[in-house]
This record gives sequence, C-alpha cells and structure tokens, in this order.
Amino acid sequence: MAAHEVTLDFHRTERIGFDEAIFSQGKSVEQLTHILETAKGRGASLLLTRLSAAQLEGLPARLRDALDYEPVSRTAYFGPLPRPEGPARVAIVAAGSSDAHVTREVARTLRYLGVGSTSFVDVGVAGLWRVLDRVEEIRQHPVVVVVAGMDAALPTVVGGLVGSVIIGVPSSNGYGVAEGGHSALNSMLASCAPGVAVMNIDNGYGAACAALRVLRAIDRK
Amino acid sequence: MAAHEVTLDFHRTERIGFDEAIFSQGKSVEQLTHILETAKGRGASLLLTRLSAAQLEGLPARLRDALDYEPVSRTAYFGPLPRPEGPARVAIVAAGSSDAHVTREVARTLRYLGVGSTSFVDVGVAGLWRVLDRVEEIRQHPVVVVVAGMDAALPTVVGGLVGSVIIGVPSSNGYGVAEGGHSALNSMLASCAPGVAVMNIDNGYGAACAALRVLRAIDRK
Amino acid sequence: MAAHEVTLDFHRTERIGFDEAIFSQGKSVEQLTHILETAKGRGASLLLTRLSAAQLEGLPARLRDALDYEPVSRTAYFGPLPRPEGPARVAIVAAGSSDAHVTREVARTLRYLGVGSTSFVDVGVAGLWRVLDRVEEIRQHPVVVVVAGMDAALPTVVGGLVGSVIIGVPSSNGYGVAEGGHSALNSMLASCAPGVAVMNIDNGYGAACAALRVLRAIDRK
Amino acid sequence: MAAHEVTLDFHRTERIGFDEAIFSQGKSVEQLTHILETAKGRGASLLLTRLSAAQLEGLPARLRDALDYEPVSRTAYFGPLPRPEGPARVAIVAAGSSDAHVTREVARTLRYLGVGSTSFVDVGVAGLWRVLDRVEEIRQHPVVVVVAGMDAALPTVVGGLVGSVIIGVPSSNGYGVAEGGHSALNSMLASCAPGVAVMNIDNGYGAACAALRVLRAIDRK
Amino acid sequence: MAAHEVTLDFHRTERIGFDEAIFSQGKSVEQLTHILETAKGRGASLLLTRLSAAQLEGLPARLRDALDYEPVSRTAYFGPLPRPEGPARVAIVAAGSSDAHVTREVARTLRYLGVGSTSFVDVGVAGLWRVLDRVEEIRQHPVVVVVAGMDAALPTVVGGLVGSVIIGVPSSNGYGVAEGGHSALNSMLASCAPGVAVMNIDNGYGAACAALRVLRAIDRK
Amino acid sequence: MAAHEVTLDFHRTERIGFDEAIFSQGKSVEQLTHILETAKGRGASLLLTRLSAAQLEGLPARLRDALDYEPVSRTAYFGPLPRPEGPARVAIVAAGSSDAHVTREVARTLRYLGVGSTSFVDVGVAGLWRVLDRVEEIRQHPVVVVVAGMDAALPTVVGGLVGSVIIGVPSSNGYGVAEGGHSALNSMLASCAPGVAVMNIDNGYGAACAALRVLRAIDRK
Amino acid sequence: MAAHEVTLDFHRTERIGFDEAIFSQGKSVEQLTHILETAKGRGASLLLTRLSAAQLEGLPARLRDALDYEPVSRTAYFGPLPRPEGPARVAIVAAGSSDAHVTREVARTLRYLGVGSTSFVDVGVAGLWRVLDRVEEIRQHPVVVVVAGMDAALPTVVGGLVGSVIIGVPSSNGYGVAEGGHSALNSMLASCAPGVAVMNIDNGYGAACAALRVLRAIDRK
Amino acid sequence: MAAHEVTLDFHRTERIGFDEAIFSQGKSVEQLTHILETAKGRGASLLLTRLSAAQLEGLPARLRDALDYEPVSRTAYFGPLPRPEGPARVAIVAAGSSDAHVTREVARTLRYLGVGSTSFVDVGVAGLWRVLDRVEEIRQHPVVVVVAGMDAALPTVVGGLVGSVIIGVPSSNGYGVAEGGHSALNSMLASCAPGVAVMNIDNGYGAACAALRVLRAIDRK
Repeated sequence: MAAHEVTLDFHRTERIGFDEAIFSQGKSVEQLTHILETAKGRGASLLLTRLSAAQLEGLPARLRDALDYEPVSRTAYFGPLPRPEGPARVAIVAAGSSDAHVTREVARTLRYLGVGSTSFVDVGVAGLWRVLDRVEEIRQHPVVVVVAGMDAALPTVVGGLVGSVIIGVPSSNGYGVAEGGHSALNSMLASCAPGVAVMNIDNGYGAACAALRVLRAIDRK
Repeated sequence: MAAHEVTLDFHRTERIGFDEAIFSQGKSVEQLTHILETAKGRGASLLLTRLSAAQLEGLPARLRDALDYEPVSRTAYFGPLPRPEGPARVAIVAAGSSDAHVTREVARTLRYLGVGSTSFVDVGVAGLWRVLDRVEEIRQHPVVVVVAGMDAALPTVVGGLVGSVIIGVPSSNGYGVAEGGHSALNSMLASCAPGVAVMNIDNGYGAACAALRVLRAIDRK
Repeated sequence: MAAHEVTLDFHRTERIGFDEAIFSQGKSVEQLTHILETAKGRGASLLLTRLSAAQLEGLPARLRDALDYEPVSRTAYFGPLPRPEGPARVAIVAAGSSDAHVTREVARTLRYLGVGSTSFVDVGVAGLWRVLDRVEEIRQHPVVVVVAGMDAALPTVVGGLVGSVIIGVPSSNGYGVAEGGHSALNSMLASCAPGVAVMNIDNGYGAACAALRVLRAIDRK
Repeated sequence: MAAHEVTLDFHRTERIGFDEAIFSQGKSVEQLTHILETAKGRGASLLLTRLSAAQLEGLPARLRDALDYEPVSRTAYFGPLPRPEGPARVAIVAAGSSDAHVTREVARTLRYLGVGSTSFVDVGVAGLWRVLDRVEEIRQHPVVVVVAGMDAALPTVVGGLVGSVIIGVPSSNGYGVAEGGHSALNSMLASCAPGVAVMNIDNGYGAACAALRVLRAIDRK
Repeated sequence: MAAHEVTLDFHRTERIGFDEAIFSQGKSVEQLTHILETAKGRGASLLLTRLSAAQLEGLPARLRDALDYEPVSRTAYFGPLPRPEGPARVAIVAAGSSDAHVTREVARTLRYLGVGSTSFVDVGVAGLWRVLDRVEEIRQHPVVVVVAGMDAALPTVVGGLVGSVIIGVPSSNGYGVAEGGHSALNSMLASCAPGVAVMNIDNGYGAACAALRVLRAIDRK
Repeated sequence: MAAHEVTLDFHRTERIGFDEAIFSQGKSVEQLTHILETAKGRGASLLLTRLSAAQLEGLPARLRDALDYEPVSRTAYFGPLPRPEGPARVAIVAAGSSDAHVTREVARTLRYLGVGSTSFVDVGVAGLWRVLDRVEEIRQHPVVVVVAGMDAALPTVVGGLVGSVIIGVPSSNGYGVAEGGHSALNSMLASCAPGVAVMNIDNGYGAACAALRVLRAIDRK
Repeated sequence: MAAHEVTLDFHRTERIGFDEAIFSQGKSVEQLTHILETAKGRGASLLLTRLSAAQLEGLPARLRDALDYEPVSRTAYFGPLPRPEGPARVAIVAAGSSDAHVTREVARTLRYLGVGSTSFVDVGVAGLWRVLDRVEEIRQHPVVVVVAGMDAALPTVVGGLVGSVIIGVPSSNGYGVAEGGHSALNSMLASCAPGVAVMNIDNGYGAACAALRVLRAIDRK
Repeated sequence: MAAHEVTLDFHRTERIGFDEAIFSQGKSVEQLTHILETAKGRGASLLLTRLSAAQLEGLPARLRDALDYEPVSRTAYFGPLPRPEGPARVAIVAAGSSDAHVTREVARTLRYLGVGSTSFVDVGVAGLWRVLDRVEEIRQHPVVVVVAGMDAALPTVVGGLVGSVIIGVPSSNGYGVAEGGHSALNSMLASCAPGVAVMNIDNGYGAACAALRVLRAIDRK
C-alpha cells in the first residue's frame, strides 16, 4: 500500500510555474521521511508547510538537520533555495504581531519561490495613522497581501487606498465570535473595497502562490 | 383569551426612564387595534416599530390616519411627541444609504424620546477620507451610533478615532456571506477598537434606548 | 437628512484606478434617482449592480430609458462606455448555464471598465473533457475568473492546469447543502490547487475589479 | 447496572449479512474488556474501530496481545479473519496521503469482512493526470470508495469518468473552512457527478459496509 | 456568448451508463428552449428536473405540450421513454406523504432510466408496526431508497432490518430545527445502522442514479 | 402509488393514549381531501395542524365547511370534540402577544384532547412584576407550558419560582440573531432553572402532547 | 470580592421541591472548597456535577475523602443521601454503552433526590428487537428518560410505543456530523413521536430534575 | 522583520482617552519580552490581557517578577497604577461564580484605568430573589456590567429593573448548546429589555473600556 500513498508531483512546474509544497498536517513521520528521501534522491528542493515540532522531532537526525525550520510559521526548507530576484515586489501587511504565524508563512513561501517581500506588521486599523503613514511605501508593491484576524477591517482600508492587487488572508487568532478566524474571513469576503481577493483562514502558503501567479503574469508581458 | 394577550406596561418609565414601544412584527391587526385604542383611552403616546405597510393598511382608518408613519424605518408615532431637548447629542454614522432602514429607526426613536441627533451617512471606510473629514464633528456628540453592514469596518475606524460612547448596529443589508447581517455583527463584536458596544442586527430602536441610558446617566450627574 | 445619505465618490479613480459602482440592493427609488441625476449633472458614467426589475420600473422614464439594462445579471450602464482595449485578457469559465447571473456580471463589469473577456461556460467537471478541450485557449488569458456553484470542483481542476491568475466566484445556485452558495465558497477556499483567490458568493463585480487590479499591475510594468 | 450496559448483537449477520463492529470511542477500558472477554468465551471474532492508543494500553496484556492493531486507522482485529475472496472488488481512491486514517479503515474493515481491495492514493485533482492515468484500472472494480478532504473535488471527477458504484467519504483533515471535514462533506453531497452516495466524515467503516451491501446484492443475483 | 452557455453532453452514456438530466433551477426560459430544441433536432429524449410551473408556462406551446410534466416532483419527460425492464428492483420507502416531492422524483427518474420501482410510503417510525409489516416485501428489492425528513429515524430502522443496499435521501419538509432538511441529513449520516449511504437533501434524482449504478454493477456480473 | 401515500394510524390511541394529528405542511390538497374523506367514512375526529389558508381554500366546500379553523394557530378541528374535563390543569405562559401562533396551538390541541388550560400571556421578563403577580395562579397547574421568543428568559424565571412540570416552547418570532427562534431554543435548553424540558421551535402541538403524557401519568396513579 | 462569588441557595427546596446542585465546571478549587465547607458547616448534603478528576485531586484530603465520587458521570455526593422511595419509577433507556457518562448522571442524580430508577442500556435501534423485547418493562415506569447520540432514533421508537412521559437527552458521543451531540439534539427536537420533551446535550442532571417534577405532580394528586 | 512586528501605540490616550492594552494570546515570549522592555524603557505602565501561565513562565525572571498577575482573569499589571477615583461607579453583576474569569477581567481592567467597581456575583435568575434583593444597590451605579453564560437571562431581568447603562458580556462557560458562549451572546443581543449593549464573548476588557467611555462622557459634562 505504501508505494501508492506518497507520489510527489515533480512536473507541476511545467504546467503552472511552481512546484508542489508538502502539506505536512496529518502525515505520519514515515510518510514524511519517505518524501524527503525521495526528494534527496532526485536532488530536488522542497518546502514543507504545517510541520509541527513533534513531527520534526520524529524525523531521523540526518533529515532533521538538513531542514531549515522556522517554528512560528511551522515551515521548513529542504535543499538549496533559488537566488532571490531584485527588489521586493510583495508587501505583507498585518494588523498585529499575533498574526506572525501567517505573515511568516507568506514571507518564507515567497522566499522559497525566489520572490522578495517587505513586511508592514502591527499597523492595525484601531490606530489608523499607523497604516496611513505607510501607504506610500505599500503602494510601491504590485501585490499586497493583507493578513488580519478579529474584525479584519484592514483589507478594506488598504483596498480603498491602494490600487495594487490585494490578497486577504484571515488569521485564526481571536476569541469568542472571532475564534478560528471565521469572522475575519467573512469580513474580507464582504469587504466594501472593490476587488479584494481572499484565501482560506491562515493560508499564507496559498497567498504566496496567488502572488506568484500575478508576478508571473506581469513577467510574461 | 384576548384580554390577557395584550397588556401594556405603562409603569416602565418610573423604573428605567422611558416607556415601552410596540414591537409590531408578528402581531395581528386586531391586537394592534386593541393596543392603539387602549393608548388612546389613556391619552398616552406610543412608538410602533417594525410596522409593515400591510399591517398599516389593515388598521381602521381613524387609527391609521392618527399615525405618523415612515415607511423605510417602518416606525409610527401615535399621539404628541415631547418637545425636543437642546442641541443634538447623538451622532448617527453609517456606511451607506442602503442602511437607511436602520439609521432612520435610530433617529425616529430618539426623536420620540425627545433627543436630537445628527446623521452622517454614506461615509464608508472604502473611501476613508469621507469619514476622516467628519471626525471633528462626530466627536462633539457624547454618543455615536455606528450603523454598518457587509464587513462593518466603520465602527473600528470611528472607535479608534473618537472617545465618545460607541454603539454599533449591524445592518442586514448584504449578500453572500453578508446576507442577514451576521458578518457585520461578528465584525463589530470582534472590533479591534476598545469598548465598542453592539446591538442586535437592525436594532435601531435598541441603539436609541442604549443612547438614552447614557444621556440619562450624564443628566443625573 | 437626505443630503447626507447619498454621497458619490468621484475621486476613487485617482486612488485605486477605477471609479465607484452603485450597489442598488436596499436603496430606495428616491435614492437611485438622486444618484443618477447627480451623475447626469456631472456628465459621469455609472455602473449599477443588483438593480432589480422592480427598482428599474420605479425610476422616472427619462432615467430608465437612459439605462442599458441586462436582466440576468441585474446590471445597468448609465452614460457612454470606454472604447474597449485590444484582445480579451480575461477568461470567464463556468460550470453551467445556471450560473449566468454571475458570469454576465463579470463580463459586463469588465466591459464597463474597458476590458474584453472570453466566456467558456457549461464546462463542468462532471464532463471533464469539456474543460480539457478548452485548456489551451483558457491559458492564453493572464486572468481566469472561474464561476461555480454546488461542489465547485472547477477552480481546482483549472488551477491545477493553468498558471494564470485564478479568481474563483462561488455561485448561489443550488439546493440542500449547496443552497445559497456556501458549499461552493468553502470548496474554493479549500481548493487543493495552490493560489486560487476567492470572492464573496455571486460577487461577479468584485471579481472583475480584482481582474482589473491585476491588469493594471501588468500595464504599469 | 453493568450487566445491561454491554449487550453484543451476535444475530445481526442473519438479518443484514454481516456482524457488529465495536465502536470504541467513549467506551471505558472496563467495557472493552468485558466485550472482548465475552467474544472470547463464544469463540467469536470482532472488529474494533476508533480504538485509541490509550485504550489499547489500558487493556489487560492477555487481551492486548491478542489484538491485531493498526495505529493510523485505529482499528483492531480480535480472533481469526475469514479467508479472503478472489480478486479485489473495491477500489479505494484518495486525494492524498494525509487521508490514510480513513483509507486504511476502509481497507481493514473490508479485509475483516473477507473482501479484497485495491488502493489508489495520492491521486488528487490538482494534479489531474495522476487520476486520469489510473481510470481504466479503477473502472475494473464494481465499487469505488473515494476518500477526500479539503475541497473534495475527486469524487466528482471520478464519478464523471467511471460508471461503478461511487461511495464518497469526506476526510476531516484540513484547516480553516476545511477543518473537521464539513466542506468536504458538503462538496460530496453537492457533487455534479450523478449518483455519488456519501458517508459521514471519516466513516471508513460505514463505507466498507455500504460496499459489502452492494457486493452481496451482486452475489445474490 | 449564448452559443457557449448551453452545451449538452450527449456522450455521457458511453462513459457512465446513463445520460445527462437537465437541472432547470436557475435556467432562463431562453436557455431551456434552446436545450429542448437541440434535443428535438437530434431526436434525443430528456429528463428535466426542478422545472417550476412558472418555467413551464414560459415555454413555447409546441415545447410545453411535448412535455410529460408532474407538478409535485417538478419533473418532465421530453421524448419517448425506454421500455421498462422486468420486476421492480428498487423499493422507495418514505416516512410520510409530505415527502412526495422526493419520492416521486426518485420513481420518475428511475422510470426515465427504464427501471421499475415499488413505493412504500407513510410508514414512519412513530408507528413502528407500519414498517415492520412491510419488511419482507422491502427486502425483495436489491436497492432500497429511504426518504425521510424531521428526525429521519426510518433509514436506521430499515438499515438494521434489511441487508439490501440502502440509499437515504433527506427531505426538506419540516419546521424549526428540521427546516430545510439539515437535521434529517445529519441523522442519516450519523445512522447507527451500518452502511447507509446518503444523498443531498431532496436529491431524488441522485438517489435514482446511485440505484442505477448498483443495478448496472449487478447486471455486469 | 396514491393508495400507499396516506395511511392513517387509527390504533395509536391504544398504544400511547392519544390519536394522530395531521401535519398538513407539505401535503397537497388531494392528500388532505383523501385524509378527511377517510376520517369521515370512519366517523373519526381529526386535528389538523399547520393548515395554511391556501390549503383550506383548496378543499372542496363540503369539507371546508365541516372544519373549525383558527387562522393564527393554523389549526382545524374535524368532527366532534370530547367533553372537556374539569378544572384547567395546564397553564400556558407567554412573553408576548406576538407568540399567539404558538400559544393558541397549545390551547387548541389541548382542547382537542379534552384538556382545559389557562392562558397567561404578555407577562414578559422585561416587565418582571407582570409574571411575579401571577405566580401563585400559575403554580396551581401541574403542567406549565412556557412559550417565548427572542432571549427566552421567561422559562428560567418561571422554572425558578414554580415546582410544576415546565415545558418550554421557543417561538420563531424575532429578527437578527433571534430570527427563526434558534436563540430562544438554545436559551431554553441552557436554562439555569433545573428540569425545564424543551420542544422544537413553534411546536405547540408537541407541548400539548407532552402535557397530556404528564396528565395521564397523574391519572394512572 | 470572594464573599460574593459563592452564595449557596438553601431555600430552593421550599420553592420548587428540590435543592441546588453544584455545577463544578469552571469553578476553581478555592471556590469548590468554600462551597463544601459551607455545606459542612450547615450539615447540608450536596450533589456536585461535572467535577473533573483534576478538580477532585485539588481538594483538601479531608473534603475529598468525604465525597462519594463516580468518575464516568463525574458526579459526587457530599453528606448522607435520603432513604430511597419504593419501586423504581424512572426508566433510563440508552442506545449504547458509550453514553454511560449521561445515563449514570441521570441515575445518580435521581438517587440523590431519593428516586429509584431502572436502566435499559445498549438497546439501540439498529438492532430493533433489543428495544422491542423490553417495551413492556419500560412501560411500567411513569417517566422514561431516553439517552441517545448519533442519529438519536431511539426516542422516536420508544415514544411511538410507550405512553409514559418521555424525556430525551442527546449524548455528545459521536464523530463527524454527530460530534458534540448537535445532530442527536436536533433529531430529538424533530421527533415524529408526539410529545417527546428534550434537554440540553449531556444534561443528565436536568433530565433527572424534570423527572422529579413529574413525580412530584403525581404525588401531589 | 522583528522591528516592524511590535509597534506600541503610546498616543492612543490623546485620541480616545485611554491607552492600549496588550492582547497576549498568540504572541510569542520574544514578542512579549520586547513589548515589556519597550514600556520599561519609556517608564510606561501596561495592562496585559489573556496572558497564559505558560507565557508568564517563559518570561525572563526580571520581567515576570515585575508583573502583578491574577490567574483566573489571566491579566497582569506592569508598572504603577493610577490612584483610584472616588466611590465605585461600575456595578459588576454575574450569574455565577463560574464566570469569575470574566468578572475579574472587568474589575481589574477598571482598576488599571483608575475606576472603582462593586461586584454582585452569584445572583443568577434561577434564584430570582437573589438579584431582587440587590437591585437598589445596583441602581446606584451609572454603569452596570452584566456577565452571564448559559441562557443569559440576567441582563434582561436587570435591564428591566434598572435605568443605568447596561453592558452585557456573555461568558463562554457552559456545555452542549451553551458551549463557547454563543447561546448567551444571542440571548443578550435578543434581550427584551430595551437598550442592553453587548460585547464579544468573554470580553471583560472591552466591557471595562465601554464603561470608561460612558464615565468620560459623564465627566466631560
């Protein structure tokens, strides 16, 4: 049975321009080990997302030591990264430092894909001037990823001030009606600022991929 | 059975400082007629909320003609109103003209209670400078009622800029995830601006009563 | 009160590159009339969305006749449209003809914004070769808007085959668990294809604006 | 009280063609011990589902050692299994290795019932050719169990390509809107492929029983 | 645009053994007319589901008169039906006459597919002997479709007594917590009888297709 | 098919002490006519619940005229009622006249079953003395049915003051979070007063049946 | 502050016939200690519900040793119990041994109140004859408490066969759509058997109190 | 990246009259350490909310020892507090000692803001006289914060008896339908007492800020 359970997709890059990341949640240590060994055998690099500390601990030392792991985002790099492109083309804007598990997943996925980013975090709407002060800088980036939990008012404010592509990522951080990020998700979907596109809750990886699709479209021009 | 079904509460004013409004939704024309006749017999004034056009049409002409009805808010006054107090002490701030069914219920309930209000409507967050331009005016009012649907980012922006009492009222106007006002409600409850107090969806009447409680507390000083 | 209730935002274009559409749902005929008269006085064009047949009927004949109304999408143009740009740059892909209320809102909003589009509709996943046959054509467009209701498997299939920017719009058409479009929305948010960005249910207008943001980013290059 | 709390149903086979499994979740170690002792006394075989590692540890060593336990599916066999029938008649198709907790429950329950199965796992729709490559093989099985989490597009794709009986099992693996498997469940119920029948989230045991009902109907012919 | 919006799938029979039905909900009269004219031109028969009386009225008389319409199930046949096969092989079991909108959709879809059925309706569990009296008859059918609303206890009772393939269809008829059929759906998914497979709420069409998949598997033997 | 669709249960009285009511919602006029003709032929009395005005109008005049219909509760009696028993043994307590659709269904079902009741309506908790004034009277009844919508605080207050059997019925009347009666239902289920038993939203018929079960238990003593 | 935080209600018995239990969930060890010391000082007995093993461990040994604790139901008796009344008057019927956390809370609360009960557990509907075999015995009890999780078909079956007072208690045991007991709760509320009254999920304590209200009404006769 | 992630807002007091609290949930120990060091460097005081015991333990001893931590409310003071104002102006009313995690957050936040409060806890509605006995005392406070879980009947009772400003805070303590506090939240929003304003579940901090807004409005008079 094992042979079928893990089949890496090494041809995705040809089709859509970037390769597959390993979604580690729900995978056993055996499956992860098999994946890493396979990539190693082919000399391929990998991005692992949602890799828990417990999963990391369970890996054989030779594989664990080969990983560049960041615990807040729970991401790991395996193998060499591409040389980064020129100036940062993605702005990562966040309402608070409590959303770092998402903002770092965005930044690290972009880095894995060779894309630079600038972080603007702790610029929540309740202190409006904090984001107003940075609008000109944010506007320089063709893509703006906005991460926010709770009431998620930030994408509406940014989307009303900046004409760049806006990608909203709801954060699960919150309590009461905000627990799990559903109120933030719904706020973003219902945003009064036109053209805010939204990802699943905590899906920083997906936001980076969506940003890459935009950058590839620009580059293809 | 009929005698028990409608018992007006004419002593509420003594206890909490204002009398009972008639919540008309779900009441039959016979019940409404009985209520109005009873009030007439006692020379009492009444505020009717959520009175549909169909209910209004069903009333006997002599009662219908005695009502001051406003169709967007579906409110009606019966009997004379108190002389209004001095300058407006409540600001009514709304994201869009689509929320007029709520903003007018707030304004008309306040007027019934003898309280003046100023309306600041169509100052949605997607066009941020619209609300920024009015902040100084809004700040002059000890109580600010903020009505918003969809993503309801407005109470967070106002609550972060103004130190007055902030009462949020979610509006049911919207579609998709915003349909029925639940996303707006959750946004307001999860607001990052500290101390935003929230009413039920479309509850303009309740917001006016909450505002009155604050004004009475100020006056009692 | 009326003067405050409708304030058009004629400066949005300067900020984010396109002007404000009029969300008609929940607006009274009086408010819509005021909006159209104001635009007329300034010689401005307008896009009205979610304009019901009943609202249209209620407008004064001189305004109604000046509108270019499409009943399935419930959109109307007021005033002249821009000359369309060159070849179509947005593909509109849909699972079935039952989703025309959304696909046409996308196409007509894009046309209002001067952007051409190509429609690929009735290419649902249950008949997989229908979409496979069109993949090469779809791939020619830098932006692909995918509209789907029910299980919304289409964005995942397209997103796995095409490297363009993918914008998913859930359709409310369905019954049982699919009623209102929430199952389609959640499917799109949870898509296994990386980088699918999602709009609110039935939000064809928003998808067109998101597409425009991408096209402007390409053009700014 | 204890005597009434656990009453095994040894006559079910006569009625519906297969005997009762022990749903272990929520049962105390005392109850499980009593069940196993009773089965032992009658020389009966048993399938235990949702048996946690902690419950297993709590059992007396003589019983624990008699169990054939598989930790990912949390299933255990007690007593001898039937000799397997001829060629595999059930295909188990899954979107990813993260769903192994379900696919293995299906395979092991079928094995307990004497039915062979073939596993096709990690054939998710985002890499469409992976499933297309296997369609002919899958089609050889009269029953196809499709396990999928997240957007659960797989049953729609398979159901549109294969005329066999299709039984969908949503997997709880996921995050954000996909957490707990509800989005996958709704996608399967709303599948555009006609005649996809659905089980409760993670109910691999039930899928195997449904498959057996079909195989018995075929065999009765 | 119109040419793309309706593309009938006349090759589905080759793939999965039965052709496409027309899901009429959300389609315009123009689209339905186009579909019927196309089928007419090819001499094809069609099944239309969820065709409202208003849609029927809107069709040109020549097409409307050619339809065999049943208003409770809102289904219509266009063109000749296949000669029915031998004895009924599907039992349709329902808790009450209030569920006739579903039971008739099952029966009429099966008839369209050439399959005979026997109806056992108004055998709800609250009067348990009603279903017990019919168990032997029900058991003669290889496939049993059980339709139930409210608490949906019927599939559990039938599934515990009969070894045939059991397909549950929740009915939307009900009020309070049962409104829309979600409580019935969840009851069926959580059924304590092993191997009950479930369709979307009110999806009689899908249940008939699932039944056909089973009968084809039997016939292929 | 018709013969099976409506099977009246004339033996229920022997089993559980009262006969079957006809739940009219979702039944066609043909089905209702058949039910009434059957009852007439047997000389049986019937209670019809949730009979809409439209259904009533559709019945043949000879049957319609034989019905004793009450429009607020949408109940109808067919045939003679039993002679009422002695003093009222059920108290019906309600928060407001807006809940009359439920309170009257309770009272009329009890009357159909031969049980007298006393109504205490418009005794909502917001005017606490209204219910306090009636506590001694309410306490005289062995069963108290409490109907309430919105926040449903009344059952908790009554249940803390009265030792009788308390049966709560949530009313669907309300708006915003209270729409449909779910907040009232949850309040009653979570009541801090011990031993409040709850019925489905708007289920006045069921509350009357539950009351009858208690009275029969008392009478059997 | 502490003095106000715990105020025992020693007068409840006079009002409603039974005294207050201590709901331990969410209380600190300090609060529980204070409650027990107070009761000890007054020579009062107490029932503690939802007392976790961790809370028990935290209590001073002199108090812990004075408690009669049952870990499955998480209930504890403090002080002497009343002499039990005569024959058992409450039947406790349950679908499976997995619901023992509820059935034991019912039985132990009744014992605390001096009421005897008979347990009929593991009589689930999927093996219908198990409950049919016991119907005559169950019927001897004036009150029947039915505990069920998952699809909760049992109360409908019992309620259709037995004329006693039926009190349903949903159990939280389950997975997928049944997780947390909400599907069981809704099934019970929507039961087709007339007059089934329902308690909150897992509220065995409340069911016992409701039973006591009925028994007191019988005894008062 | 770190420099941007934590930006304290030391100018909020000028705008809205009170400074920012630190919402600790989701922050890493590194972030909290940075925040405390920054405040220390400026000689500023801080209020930390939702600071878990684990976070506290992780802080460097020199910072941990400088915190005045209260474990039930999970709040901590850093730096000196203002001298308290005169008599208590806020009443904190709660249904039970199980809600102490909220009532203490209210009291401690008020104390941080220099405002005195009086606590009235364990005055739940099921024992109605407990709250009736304290009404006169409660009424002396211009602001009344009512904390309640489960059915949350208390704000309605208090709001109907007291004319002060009423701020409701739902408590998450409960089980079944009350789990997480959503039923309490909805009860408060749907309160029949006019003018009850509501905060997010467990948001004692927000209630204190709302109370402060009222007191500042009184003081500004």
